[in-house]
Amino acid sequence: MEENTIYIGNKPVMNYVLAVVTQFNDYDTVTLRARGKAISRAVDTAEIVRNSFVQKADVADIQISTEEVENYNNEKTNVSIIEIKLVK
Amino acid sequence: MEENTIYIGNKPVMNYVLAVVTQFNDYDTVTLRARGKAISRAVDTAEIVRNSFVQKADVADIQISTEEVENYNNEKTNVSIIEIKLVK
Repeated sequence: MEENTIYIGNKPVMNYVLAVVTQFNDYDTVTLRARGKAISRAVDTAEIVRNSFVQKADVADIQISTEEVENYNNEKTNVSIIEIKLVK
Repeated sequence: MEENTIYIGNKPVMNYVLAVVTQFNDYDTVTLRARGKAISRAVDTAEIVRNSFVQKADVADIQISTEEVENYNNEKTNVSIIEIKLVK
């Protein structure tokens, strides 16, 4: 895990906004990574950061991909991934 | 509404996959647009289309933005938008 990658999960969106703003004190680039239903929260985080907290931040790149994961029945299933790269 | 833009809502993801595959019969470019919680379904749709149904399709561009909407109490609130442009 790179230090300036933030993994977006199921916490409230403002937790991740705070994490991004904090990382921008040390880095010019912060990447948000999320999968499955957390993808929309990653987009929310990026939008809130650049509209309200780090207005010089911009979206440099967005990538989507697919990962195979095992669920709790040991069945393999596909999950979508998003990576949003923010640069200030 | 452009004919080759597909609005992703709350239906099962395979409905949207079918819509994209159908549009690719007539267009070289199909744009998926979603907001809020449907954003992750738009990413799923793009990934399923290009991994399974239209393998020459690729992601040409992804844009995120914010729209102000009124909820049923007439309060304004912000919602995130994603637009995924697929090209075959």
